[in-house]
Amino acid sequence: MSGRGKTEVEIQVLTEGVEPAPRTDRLAVEEPLEGRLGDEPVAVLMRSPGQDMELALGLLFSEGILQDPDQVLSVAYCSDTTEEAAGNVVRVLAEGADRTAFEKAQRSVYASSSCGLCGKATIDAVRLMTPKVEPIGPLSRAMLSTLPERVRGQQPLFGETGGVHAAALFSATGELLLVREDIGRHNACDKILGAMALREVWPLSGKIMVLSGRASFEMVQKAAMAGIGAIVAVSAPSSMAVNLAREHGMALIGFARGDSMNLYSGEICE
Amino acid sequence: MSGRGKTEVEIQVLTEGVEPAPRTDRLAVEEPLEGRLGDEPVAVLMRSPGQDMELALGLLFSEGILQDPDQVLSVAYCSDTTEEAAGNVVRVLAEGADRTAFEKAQRSVYASSSCGLCGKATIDAVRLMTPKVEPIGPLSRAMLSTLPERVRGQQPLFGETGGVHAAALFSATGELLLVREDIGRHNACDKILGAMALREVWPLSGKIMVLSGRASFEMVQKAAMAGIGAIVAVSAPSSMAVNLAREHGMALIGFARGDSMNLYSGEICE
Repeated sequence: MSGRGKTEVEIQVLTEGVEPAPRTDRLAVEEPLEGRLGDEPVAVLMRSPGQDMELALGLLFSEGILQDPDQVLSVAYCSDTTEEAAGNVVRVLAEGADRTAFEKAQRSVYASSSCGLCGKATIDAVRLMTPKVEPIGPLSRAMLSTLPERVRGQQPLFGETGGVHAAALFSATGELLLVREDIGRHNACDKILGAMALREVWPLSGKIMVLSGRASFEMVQKAAMAGIGAIVAVSAPSSMAVNLAREHGMALIGFARGDSMNLYSGEICE
Repeated sequence: MSGRGKTEVEIQVLTEGVEPAPRTDRLAVEEPLEGRLGDEPVAVLMRSPGQDMELALGLLFSEGILQDPDQVLSVAYCSDTTEEAAGNVVRVLAEGADRTAFEKAQRSVYASSSCGLCGKATIDAVRLMTPKVEPIGPLSRAMLSTLPERVRGQQPLFGETGGVHAAALFSATGELLLVREDIGRHNACDKILGAMALREVWPLSGKIMVLSGRASFEMVQKAAMAGIGAIVAVSAPSSMAVNLAREHGMALIGFARGDSMNLYSGEICE
């Protein structure tokens, strides 16, 4: 993926007291991916080209449009596109998709009619039906503290460009299952979900998700939609992320740096 | 804004070899804001509560739905909402809004019908009509190198929570015009645009935008929609960001750290 994920560009490095120096710089590639369910577009995502099947499929699961890998009939690049779009449109064929969730995902707003209802609409727009997250037993602090460093060792695109996020999935005992990078942190998370759905491992109960950045509401919601029981973020969680994690009995760790971490939700043992 | 922008939560700090310590932690508040044009929702944004008028208005300008502050009749919280949504719905009344841009902004996809067209639809979905950006004269490297540090001094919410981004606007000679923080970096940028539109300063030709993080395609596009001539980002730009900046003759600086910076587009003098 780091092959398609990066590109080179000629730049100048400007440093005080030094002649401007031309250099070839590696950039993280950013391209739009259109995910389609059948012939209908679901969303256009600005993403790092690479695991596009995982991303398109993961989006359908994280939005609650699909709930079971058995629903998936096929996932493939759309061949009937312009040359410009080749490799940037993925079509998922599936049965029993949730139309309400689909229509919600298609819009940046939940369509509402009267302003008297807009409060409800606003909350509806951001809250998805979340499946029951099974609480994960108290995790080991010592084990958790090793996870971010182990993810950092598997971020080749970040190493080359400095411009991408990572999400990773671990078992409850700290076994690394997979790492995904993307220019968008939501995409990195969706790729994890999609990759596991492609392997027909679903839901992801008893798993830990590690995030290279912050834990926002939407990141926690995506994890919850997959049944993930614990989240370890290197940076800060938001207020709504903490509320959602507590509501679903998920463990939420923030500022996981070296030997220290903050526990915002759930329980941890030594 | 840092009043509404933060909240406190009881957490545990876990450190190797130390008893778990309870602590009161400050979190960045994240809440949905529904922006409406008249009675129609434009988008629901996960944002830091605060400059909500600026954000709702800025979104309309950065999406190309409005192009001139003279079009704006009023910007106000919607009073006819549920208690839960009070302060989270902003209604803009304006004349001469661009309906095509409005409908595009309402959807996470540009509605297309046949798959043979989806390449076109994908590109259309992410490319907005961009007004002509007036090239900004060669900026001073020495002046530019001072900007990120000056922004850092004006990020109270980041200082307290560690969980928010900042965008700032400077004149071409380095005069600080304003700084805005938000849990979403796109929102910080939109707040800048909205604040200037509220002051009836538009377009923002000859101005410099400083970003506390990365420069993605969407960030450069928002700046271009405002006519901003130069962007200084503390972190990496993406490939599409560089392409867009070059296309519009914008100066784009990345990895602006201390005395060193990378010039991806445009010209700089000492």
